[in-house]
Amino acid sequence: HLRLKSSPQLRSVRASSIFAPTDSFARRHVGPLDSADTEHMLKTLGSASIDALVADVIPDKILTRRPLSVQPQNGFSESELTARLKEIANKNTVLRSYIGAGYYGTVVPPVIQRNILECPEWYTSYTPYQPEISQGRLESLLNYQTLVTDLTGMSIANASLLDEGTAAAEAMLLSFNALRGKKKTYYVDSSVHPQTLSCIKSRALVFDIKIVQELPSDDKELFGAVAQYPSTDGSINDFSELGARVHAAGGLFSVASDLLALTLLKPPSEFKADIVFGTSQRFGVPMGYGGPHAAFFAAADSQKRKIPGRLVGVSKDRLGDDAYRLALQTREQHIRREKATSNICTAQALLANMAAMYAVYHGPKGLQKIASRVYSLTSVLATAIKSLQYKIVNETWFDTLTVEVADADKILSHAVSMFGINLRKIDSKLVAVSIDETVTKPDVLDLVSIFANLSDVPHASVTEDTLDDIAGTLAISVIKPAIIPESFRRAGKILNYKVFNSYHTETEMLRYIHHLQTKDLSLANSMIPLGSCTMKLNATTQMAPLSWPQFSNLHPFIPRDQAQGYTELIAELEADLADITGFDATSLQPNSGAQGEYTGLRVIKAYLEAIGQSQRNVCLIPVSAHGTNPASAVMAGMKVVAVKCTAEGELDILDLETKAEKHKDELAALMVTYPSTFGVFEPRVKDAVNIVHDRGGQVYMDGANMNAQIGLCSPGDIGVDVCHLNLHKTFCIPHGGGGPGVGPICVKSHLAPFLPGHPVVSMAGDEMAAIQPVAAAPWGSASILTISWAYIKMMGGKGIIRSTEYALLNANYMAERLREHYPILYKNAEGRCAHEFIVDIRGFKDSADIEAIDVAKRLQDYGFHAPTMSWPVAGTLMIEPTESESLAELDRFCDAMIAIREEIREIEQGSQPKDINVLKNSPHSIKDLMRGDWDRPYSREKAAFPLPYLRERKFWPSVTRLNDTYGDLNLFCTCEPLALENID
Amino acid sequence: HLRLKSSPQLRSVRASSIFAPTDSFARRHVGPLDSADTEHMLKTLGSASIDALVADVIPDKILTRRPLSVQPQNGFSESELTARLKEIANKNTVLRSYIGAGYYGTVVPPVIQRNILECPEWYTSYTPYQPEISQGRLESLLNYQTLVTDLTGMSIANASLLDEGTAAAEAMLLSFNALRGKKKTYYVDSSVHPQTLSCIKSRALVFDIKIVQELPSDDKELFGAVAQYPSTDGSINDFSELGARVHAAGGLFSVASDLLALTLLKPPSEFKADIVFGTSQRFGVPMGYGGPHAAFFAAADSQKRKIPGRLVGVSKDRLGDDAYRLALQTREQHIRREKATSNICTAQALLANMAAMYAVYHGPKGLQKIASRVYSLTSVLATAIKSLQYKIVNETWFDTLTVEVADADKILSHAVSMFGINLRKIDSKLVAVSIDETVTKPDVLDLVSIFANLSDVPHASVTEDTLDDIAGTLAISVIKPAIIPESFRRAGKILNYKVFNSYHTETEMLRYIHHLQTKDLSLANSMIPLGSCTMKLNATTQMAPLSWPQFSNLHPFIPRDQAQGYTELIAELEADLADITGFDATSLQPNSGAQGEYTGLRVIKAYLEAIGQSQRNVCLIPVSAHGTNPASAVMAGMKVVAVKCTAEGELDILDLETKAEKHKDELAALMVTYPSTFGVFEPRVKDAVNIVHDRGGQVYMDGANMNAQIGLCSPGDIGVDVCHLNLHKTFCIPHGGGGPGVGPICVKSHLAPFLPGHPVVSMAGDEMAAIQPVAAAPWGSASILTISWAYIKMMGGKGIIRSTEYALLNANYMAERLREHYPILYKNAEGRCAHEFIVDIRGFKDSADIEAIDVAKRLQDYGFHAPTMSWPVAGTLMIEPTESESLAELDRFCDAMIAIREEIREIEQGSQPKDINVLKNSPHSIKDLMRGDWDRPYSREKAAFPLPYLRERKFWPSVTRLNDTYGDLNLFCTCEPLALENID
Ligand SMILES: Cc1ncc(COP(=O)(O)O)c(C=O)c1O
Ligand SMILES: Cc1ncc(COP(=O)(O)O)c(C=O)c1O
Ligand SMILES: O=C([O-])O
Repeated sequence: HLRLKSSPQLRSVRASSIFAPTDSFARRHVGPLDSADTEHMLKTLGSASIDALVADVIPDKILTRRPLSVQPQNGFSESELTARLKEIANKNTVLRSYIGAGYYGTVVPPVIQRNILECPEWYTSYTPYQPEISQGRLESLLNYQTLVTDLTGMSIANASLLDEGTAAAEAMLLSFNALRGKKKTYYVDSSVHPQTLSCIKSRALVFDIKIVQELPSDDKELFGAVAQYPSTDGSINDFSELGARVHAAGGLFSVASDLLALTLLKPPSEFKADIVFGTSQRFGVPMGYGGPHAAFFAAADSQKRKIPGRLVGVSKDRLGDDAYRLALQTREQHIRREKATSNICTAQALLANMAAMYAVYHGPKGLQKIASRVYSLTSVLATAIKSLQYKIVNETWFDTLTVEVADADKILSHAVSMFGINLRKIDSKLVAVSIDETVTKPDVLDLVSIFANLSDVPHASVTEDTLDDIAGTLAISVIKPAIIPESFRRAGKILNYKVFNSYHTETEMLRYIHHLQTKDLSLANSMIPLGSCTMKLNATTQMAPLSWPQFSNLHPFIPRDQAQGYTELIAELEADLADITGFDATSLQPNSGAQGEYTGLRVIKAYLEAIGQSQRNVCLIPVSAHGTNPASAVMAGMKVVAVKCTAEGELDILDLETKAEKHKDELAALMVTYPSTFGVFEPRVKDAVNIVHDRGGQVYMDGANMNAQIGLCSPGDIGVDVCHLNLHKTFCIPHGGGGPGVGPICVKSHLAPFLPGHPVVSMAGDEMAAIQPVAAAPWGSASILTISWAYIKMMGGKGIIRSTEYALLNANYMAERLREHYPILYKNAEGRCAHEFIVDIRGFKDSADIEAIDVAKRLQDYGFHAPTMSWPVAGTLMIEPTESESLAELDRFCDAMIAIREEIREIEQGSQPKDINVLKNSPHSIKDLMRGDWDRPYSREKAAFPLPYLRERKFWPSVTRLNDTYGDLNLFCTCEPLALENID
Repeated sequence: HLRLKSSPQLRSVRASSIFAPTDSFARRHVGPLDSADTEHMLKTLGSASIDALVADVIPDKILTRRPLSVQPQNGFSESELTARLKEIANKNTVLRSYIGAGYYGTVVPPVIQRNILECPEWYTSYTPYQPEISQGRLESLLNYQTLVTDLTGMSIANASLLDEGTAAAEAMLLSFNALRGKKKTYYVDSSVHPQTLSCIKSRALVFDIKIVQELPSDDKELFGAVAQYPSTDGSINDFSELGARVHAAGGLFSVASDLLALTLLKPPSEFKADIVFGTSQRFGVPMGYGGPHAAFFAAADSQKRKIPGRLVGVSKDRLGDDAYRLALQTREQHIRREKATSNICTAQALLANMAAMYAVYHGPKGLQKIASRVYSLTSVLATAIKSLQYKIVNETWFDTLTVEVADADKILSHAVSMFGINLRKIDSKLVAVSIDETVTKPDVLDLVSIFANLSDVPHASVTEDTLDDIAGTLAISVIKPAIIPESFRRAGKILNYKVFNSYHTETEMLRYIHHLQTKDLSLANSMIPLGSCTMKLNATTQMAPLSWPQFSNLHPFIPRDQAQGYTELIAELEADLADITGFDATSLQPNSGAQGEYTGLRVIKAYLEAIGQSQRNVCLIPVSAHGTNPASAVMAGMKVVAVKCTAEGELDILDLETKAEKHKDELAALMVTYPSTFGVFEPRVKDAVNIVHDRGGQVYMDGANMNAQIGLCSPGDIGVDVCHLNLHKTFCIPHGGGGPGVGPICVKSHLAPFLPGHPVVSMAGDEMAAIQPVAAAPWGSASILTISWAYIKMMGGKGIIRSTEYALLNANYMAERLREHYPILYKNAEGRCAHEFIVDIRGFKDSADIEAIDVAKRLQDYGFHAPTMSWPVAGTLMIEPTESESLAELDRFCDAMIAIREEIREIEQGSQPKDINVLKNSPHSIKDLMRGDWDRPYSREKAAFPLPYLRERKFWPSVTRLNDTYGDLNLFCTCEPLALENID
């Protein structure tokens, strides 16, 4: 984890030289990077220069401007970046990996690759908190939930979790909490993947949960159990007995499973699973050296209000039409904070959408055909291997065979060197092979040959004919594939829903994807000024490498010498992030900001234990903190103590000192967000740090607002011990409609030894001290690290500071323009905000019966996504423009806000009624405005085109305002099944 | 050009084997490839089977079902195809090519690459004949025209031509026709590229135009001249004198030019050019081994109604708002047929859009910066080369230096072998090098080193410092680049239009591209059932290789051993096309269907000349033929004689025989479309062929309708001599909103020697017999050949027949559903149509005052693109669904047509007035329907949502019906300039 200097592979050219390439990046990334615009904005602000503005924004003692050592200093041009990344890519060796264990080769349907994964309209949208402008991806996520419930046989499923490992941990915690923590033993069956076990252990630790791998003789302490189906060794087991036993003990039974296998196998519901989870990676999502992939999580009806993560439900809009929305948000940490059952915020929406679309494209028959082929080829392979006198450990299988061998290492290295194939080593005498959708006949032949070559029984040479012969003997063909044994065979139809039975040609699929896309507002339409979310440009040059096979087709458990490109890129990124944050080491494993928080706190705990301070478990958290902070603290086994804020929105230092003092013996950590969640650089943050340090606590910084700091100041320089970053905010990973994310943590050297390790892959860290993994894959969502790496390398050590400066300029410019129209909360003494600011809507409740939600929804009529609503302060809107928005766009948004202010004034002045007006009725869909019986006190044009630009460019909400109450009362989280007569 | 067997690189697997891959393609390509759908359709038709239907559709003696030898017979799966194409791609060697001569390295802005070139919404749209649903690309093409007029200084420009070579030929013909062919001498200056000269000569031949390269002493015969600026040797010349001399002779002066150079150079208007043309390739369009690229063509005001190709103009819509449309279509061959001045139909819209967007992205300053850098690096290089005691032939330059060397071959091979650089050989003692946007400092260093290494004067070693020193001496830097000599230097601002001064960040650019895209209906929205246009699936797997550098980054004039992958792919494609058409040889050079026609006729002429029949010059063309047929015949120097059709829409065989007999001594050819343009397989086509053959004529088949033939019958089997194919119809090259296209011709062996050659690249053919090139690049638009190759290889020799069968089934099914609602013209004796059919609207003129255009525009309200309107029969609509449309989509379209029929009935029955009704007012834009003052006899809902599916999925026209008359009277073909106060 130590800092590495990035190798200056391409000669850097002085920017002033005529030889400098013309496709430099910063001017494409930063909205107003043009002297006239900058001047105009500074003038509006009355600032002499950007430096002067920065000095007004950031307190003296915080502003360090420590030069970054990020190379190249001036940044690569876009084509240089691509050339450099190709060099790195070519250091990854793409072999065939039949390692399985949760990661499988898959054929990404090209129509999905191009129109979702490579489509900015899909990947730049935000989590669908504004349902009226998100019906497309909400529909797709509902398809995902339907896919999962149908295949698992459960009654409800969420819209994705981070990965299979964390899903397992969530399942355990749900089980634990179901008995209110009264029982402490959890059984993990030997059928479970090792990395899943590690994630479970990791999470169990802080709650003193005892993980057992043998069923205890006495079930009294048992609150739950988890098994895998099919098992990690490939076998298919009936877990009815285990399920019954767990239930008898009053516990919950969880099953890790595989969606492809479930198309043919009895669903886990048949042996009474309460929870079924797993990864949907093999549904058309590349392995990506570990991620990102969507995990699924399904539960029985009894658990439906406890399910972690986001849930899409069907509700009604103002016109009474069906419309989708995120359901039951009251369960989530935004509302429940430390009482939340999970800290999941960003999840894996984009990947869940890809998996859902994969199922839409293939349909039930197509999926079963793929599964049958996998099963048939596995059966052919089994017969061939057995005929070579090997013992196959598992007597049943779907796609995986575990084979007894004389020397596992020998067979693995033979497979790599002679065939370019990676197998899985289970132990010194056991290897496993998993067949996937991509496997061809020559691949099977190669697999057989590996075993044949190392077999000491005499055998005839193996040819493709051998395989045909075996297939013949087994009597299998496309028309008659191998049939799963009766006892495990699934009965009845799967996926009998219209959406899974309609779009099976590329043309139909393209149209369906396109149609959904047109309902969603994304960065391709207009700015998404979500405070605390940093919705900035996700440049094509950063995104393109995701489609390169050298990044997308690596299994996370391959020998590390096959991933030297990744190793190099990861080392550079770790070093650059450490440099930027002012820290000494980085872990890229956490795959969301919230997981970063959890990891950081776990690392703090591990450190405290190592220095004999294991009693320290109080975490001080300001009331203004994001809900994930307290939720993560609780998950890390800490006790949350809230710290007040002042009326000016600053940390109440006195209260902090009092609480720190009060808990000084148990003080583990302070969590602080900087600039604060109110969008202010608090001058006394260093005092806060000292207060905690003085009392033996560590300081954690939530780096969600890092976009306001880079190059100007840093957590390390401020003196904190650890921070997480949201690469999906500050470092350009697109939000994907709700994920993927990457939430790395950077730490001071005393914490570095404790950064998480991995049970399968040996990482660089200290294997003894490292905490158990917080994610299934060693480097979390490795493939998207390319995006942040590319961003940093194109901006360069010097250029990246421009992003920060313009993030501050843009926000202050908007605040200045809006100042006369709305109260702006929490400016600093100089009258400046940081990179975001809060507009107060509360005053209009009395004057016009208008609330923040009305302004938010009315902004949709103006073609904009609302700012962050009612957080961190209820009744307000928090605006963060980022550096990527141009002056024209900032002005357009300000114009909209000002126009809305005038609309409010009409209500205040009585020229529009309080109950029926353009704000209360917003947003207006086309259908709404086409109604013949118009009896509103405002015109259709006023509703639709309140400003002239809207006549040329307008994004239309596809439904009217959602009815949240109806949806929560009538929870409905799957597609409507096909009517009986439509079932063929 | 002889048939080649394609090499079966990947083992083909029997489709019935369980080992067969699951990502087979045909079922994704063919809409109803599902037994239930097929059964339903056959039942509707009362056909027992597809074979039975085919037998009803295709006359016995035509239906051969000759097995195709296309390999692999069962087709590659999508992933196999990609693997195979990667093998081929890797046989192309991507070196640095500084050859210039019309093809330059360029940096495709990634945001344009992803969101236009790789975006189905852009590439699958049709030529914008329906302006109300095409405002996006019309705006972009207007930007292109504005870019061209502004940089050339001319007053009008078209929306692209096929390439620089054909643009030159068009310029010559325009000049020739301006004097009504009375003068016969045309001067081509030595400054013109060799391939341009060849294209000019090729076109001159048939009109007996004398091409001279020395100015004649007497200008009496001179009708025009063309020069290149900057010249092919790199020099910049003032052509004022030449222009004046041409004008004095009453002729027109044309100038080939370069848009990048023109950002710094005086525009050709300053030396009174009447026409300025050239390629816009280097504006962000990859070289692609020759194409596709857009040529531009601009003219002085006096020529504005004679300009060839499509022209976008600004007009008004029904509401009086500005709206774009194709202007002056009355000039085109659709209307003027053999009197048209050009045969251009499909052009290069997609590439013109890319070039326009490149200019939008860079803006005037960015373009000038790129140009200045090119000029500066060229100047540095010149200084370095001169210091090595070489003579540079051109004393002035923009980007190109022509250098005297001892041995050109030696320096070229040194450059390739030691530096991986391609230079241009001009003759044995002259080499040229052209600097482009992609050139870096190390590249310049390498270039200098090439010359240094072969120099025999002693010199110090060359390093990057040498270059810095030279730059220092020349006093050039980014801030102060090299300055073009005063006499050539451009004065004043360029591109002072809002659109070129607004979108310079990637975010803004993305939004602009996205915004335009949302205005356009493409295959991503719904079927585009354009008869004769075959708008079928353009699959992602076929499109993806276009982005691979091995296909996109090759210069067409590189040594052929660097293009072995292309050679292999081209050979396979030529062979497969010859096999499919039943011919012996193929030329892929023509880059549109119309160019194919022209080429085919030229080849016929060459053959006739070779056999001593040069007097034969009559071309018989049925009156039902597409307008390009007569226009191409005239361009090929033939006299058109029209042949009648019967009332049943068939070729009037008697009339044919009479005319053939009458002209038997001059009979050169018959052009015939099959199945006929009326959508019928004429049983007597073989009789027609015999009639012409018996009288010494050749038969040309227009293969636009080949989608109805493949695998069932073929032009070769029918007995014709040559046909063209539209790869952009039958073979899946997307229409690109009006191009690119590829119009290869296939010929019988007696015509093979005459297939076009190339002056720079030695092709496989008979160099002596070959006609002069018909396009600038040897294999025309080489890079997109990958698309058709991939389509054929994925369908396979057997599978591709399924496309044809379903094209017939789909059309007949629709005809059957519509039969009771509309008269269907021209069914065959069995009551069947071919792959398209004609719906007669004429009867509604009397009954309801409704015309074809009203139905066409009303279809937009139903979310559909109109079928082909009023061609080949005025007052009708010709519907071609293609095989790619699903049953659901066919039904949706039929439902729309039937609903419109009911709307007509309401008028007929008097419940709706004849003048104001949903048809006459169609299409309805949102703005139109939002008007408060609603006084129409129908409701808004009825206008917007006449069928239930539209409430869920509706495409909205962005303007109301265009006013064509207004637009033609008020011709306005560029953007509005910035208001003075907006100019900085
Ligand atoms: C301040 C803050 N902390 C933490 C998070 C959680 O990050 P993630 O959604 O990646 O889990 C957020 C998310 O918006 C945030 O704004
Ligand atoms: C019958 C027919 N012939 C020729 C052409 C001309 O082809 P292109 O547009 O490629 O020049 C067309 C175009 O639609 C056509 O329909
Ligand atoms: O483009 C056509 O003329 O069909």
